[in-house]
Amino acid sequence: MITDQDTIVAIATGQGGAIAVIRLSGPQVFEVGDAIFQSKSGEKLASQKGYTLHYGSIQDQNHHSVDDVLISVFHAPYSYTGEDMLEISCHASPYIQQEILRLCQHQGARAARPGEFTLRAFLNGKMDLAQAEAVADIIAANSRAAHELATRQIRGGYSEEFSRLRAQLLELVSLLELELDFSEEDVEFADRNQIDNLMKTIYNKIYHLKSSFKLGNILKNGAPVAIVGSPNVGKSTLLNALVNEEKALVSDIAGTTRDVIEDTVNIDGVLYRFIDTAGIRETDDPLENLGIERTFQRLDQAAIVLLLIDAQESVEAMMPQLDTVDIRADQRIAVVLNKADRIDSEELAHKQQLLHEKTRYTVIGLSAKHRTNMNALLDFLKDSIHWESLREEEVIVFNARHHQILQEAESALLRARQSLADRLPGDLLAQDIREILYHLNSITGTEEITSDDILKNIFSSFCIGK
Amino acid sequence: MITDQDTIVAIATGQGGAIAVIRLSGPQVFEVGDAIFQSKSGEKLASQKGYTLHYGSIQDQNHHSVDDVLISVFHAPYSYTGEDMLEISCHASPYIQQEILRLCQHQGARAARPGEFTLRAFLNGKMDLAQAEAVADIIAANSRAAHELATRQIRGGYSEEFSRLRAQLLELVSLLELELDFSEEDVEFADRNQIDNLMKTIYNKIYHLKSSFKLGNILKNGAPVAIVGSPNVGKSTLLNALVNEEKALVSDIAGTTRDVIEDTVNIDGVLYRFIDTAGIRETDDPLENLGIERTFQRLDQAAIVLLLIDAQESVEAMMPQLDTVDIRADQRIAVVLNKADRIDSEELAHKQQLLHEKTRYTVIGLSAKHRTNMNALLDFLKDSIHWESLREEEVIVFNARHHQILQEAESALLRARQSLADRLPGDLLAQDIREILYHLNSITGTEEITSDDILKNIFSSFCIGK
Repeated sequence: MITDQDTIVAIATGQGGAIAVIRLSGPQVFEVGDAIFQSKSGEKLASQKGYTLHYGSIQDQNHHSVDDVLISVFHAPYSYTGEDMLEISCHASPYIQQEILRLCQHQGARAARPGEFTLRAFLNGKMDLAQAEAVADIIAANSRAAHELATRQIRGGYSEEFSRLRAQLLELVSLLELELDFSEEDVEFADRNQIDNLMKTIYNKIYHLKSSFKLGNILKNGAPVAIVGSPNVGKSTLLNALVNEEKALVSDIAGTTRDVIEDTVNIDGVLYRFIDTAGIRETDDPLENLGIERTFQRLDQAAIVLLLIDAQESVEAMMPQLDTVDIRADQRIAVVLNKADRIDSEELAHKQQLLHEKTRYTVIGLSAKHRTNMNALLDFLKDSIHWESLREEEVIVFNARHHQILQEAESALLRARQSLADRLPGDLLAQDIREILYHLNSITGTEEITSDDILKNIFSSFCIGK
Repeated sequence: MITDQDTIVAIATGQGGAIAVIRLSGPQVFEVGDAIFQSKSGEKLASQKGYTLHYGSIQDQNHHSVDDVLISVFHAPYSYTGEDMLEISCHASPYIQQEILRLCQHQGARAARPGEFTLRAFLNGKMDLAQAEAVADIIAANSRAAHELATRQIRGGYSEEFSRLRAQLLELVSLLELELDFSEEDVEFADRNQIDNLMKTIYNKIYHLKSSFKLGNILKNGAPVAIVGSPNVGKSTLLNALVNEEKALVSDIAGTTRDVIEDTVNIDGVLYRFIDTAGIRETDDPLENLGIERTFQRLDQAAIVLLLIDAQESVEAMMPQLDTVDIRADQRIAVVLNKADRIDSEELAHKQQLLHEKTRYTVIGLSAKHRTNMNALLDFLKDSIHWESLREEEVIVFNARHHQILQEAESALLRARQSLADRLPGDLLAQDIREILYHLNSITGTEEITSDDILKNIFSSFCIGK
């Protein structure tokens, strides 16, 4: 079994810092807590009200004080996990944290597995599976967009959307089984059209949800951007200019350290991840000179392509460069005329117009070196990922597991529609739909308890202490 | 001024982890808290009792939920700083932490400087300066010994020792000033012996405290150990064997990661820091072959020296190697006969005895490669730092600032005793003693408020959030 009646313990905070929090959950927390904690008031933790804090010292077997701590008390079911819980707030020294963990384990608590607190919250009905999964995404979120997505998934709307989908599938199953009851009498069921329409509706919804993953994945993990162009046209200068623009945008808040991720720029809450196409970082490596061909092999990973051209070139010289780029319908591209400061503005406007007329692409003139007209490029990048305009209740799938389930459901539904067209018996059809339902149930995990394997898989990617 | 009436805010936990804690302290915490927090109960934080926890959500200016959090409420003076305080326990995402910080600052809180919470605790009389300094040491402690030292300094005994010292110095001053009152009448004061004895007593105490720093520094920062010997005698094999012994000693507690510090071994709660003497890590670098001479230049940093000799060599060949090592009285040395498995035990015992008779050094025969008789070496290392036998109330100075003050006090006292011997006027003497008092006062900071410069210096080495 993936769960048990053990009392679990884990350090819930990160390394370093001034204070650390050690969490305990399970039926024995008060026995463990009272065995190692001496409160200033002399009272036992077990007799304290929930949502209260208690000051005292953690003591080892020899009544030697390990640390002065504050302990938060929670009584089941009014806690994160739904079980009795304690949170020990101690000084953040590696020694103290290890020692308190050791003492808790000595008193019978077991080291928690990754995600085990949230797993228990799920098993105790505190949240459904989709919400539990979003907890890990909330913790990992490092941009406003990723945070917003995870928050949406925790709010009711996400799971409700899947509830409605399941309700429609159940309706479909009962319609099909209605037919099944009469099938032996060879009675054609009343309204084949009704079933067909319902299938279409369901298919559209599943397709819509599945397709939202593209945006969801971009918002969660960043939009892949490829900067392409001939050598020395200024690709790395442009990337550096974008990084500098970001620094100007993101206010520095004292007391926080920003993780510097190379080649990633956060614009208005969305991460843009610059794909390492050969030549972005220009080197003297002769292999790099294999050049354009190799670069464009990476292009199909990109959601956004910036084709960089030297503004000083003639339009005739620019045209072949445009032709080298093959853009899919779901990709956005901008032609960026760099070094625009070196030609006069009339000439620039003329070139922009000609290029735009030929390609219908957005054409931006700027100087990466002097960081002029960078705003036009930032606006293009922002407009390419139009998430701000999403309706509050819009459901966006960004979880890869959910996406995979939706893909399977989509295929199964396509097969079912084909079977319906082929006038296969209703019981076979109902079977197919039940399979879709089974998969979809494992997204929120509410109707049928999801298998241990799936739970293990989900929660093992959590951090310990959550 | 180093302090002000600002409400301060800081992330108090380390990077990573599942949950983070953001601390607020100051007169405006409830205004700030209630402006960004919507409790589930609908009640305001300001109206809540101290030492209670409240569940709700942090909301930004647009009433957009940033995170669901738990907030701990503390009312002055019953808090760590002695001021009104809030602690926000949120999900540990970088985005959420930054956003909550930003919102607090938007509502008028200021980013806390390093150690500012503890500084306020000191200024509000929650602890004296020596105790405040020990807070930083508690957080940094990564061995049982370092933790024990810092804990001792927080407990009363440490500051009491300095109180008693100050009381004796004050007695000395008044005795000297008594003489001063009569000096114009050229009356020799009553009991010069009494003053001399008191000075001796004080000097001995200061000398004793000052001297304890050597042990204190070792317990705090680790005992420097030098492994010396000819090339290929097995120095790096011995170091690896010690590291492996430690792994066997230190039980692995799930959920904690041990920082691996190269060439540091924790034996029974004390760190042993292996000095990078040329040749410990044997390389093919020809420069290394400058060899023994260069190695021994580093020897004087060591508290413990392990002289490694190949057990297969003849005693005659061993003797010159013993002579190359020059040991101070405060250093411990063991001669380690490595590769002892290659000679028979009788021969080994004979060599050990001969070497011991000649040098009085501890002589240990072992095989680093096969890890035989490593216990003898571990025992030697443990015995070299005999801290376990310290009396509970024994004061050990391990703070470099305190050590420096004690050194200054010691010199000043020596000068004063000389002045007394030279029969200099009592008022000059009293001046000297007053200076010593002034310095000693700044250890606990209780009697006279210590200068801003000293406070800045102390607290700037703290981490933020403490």
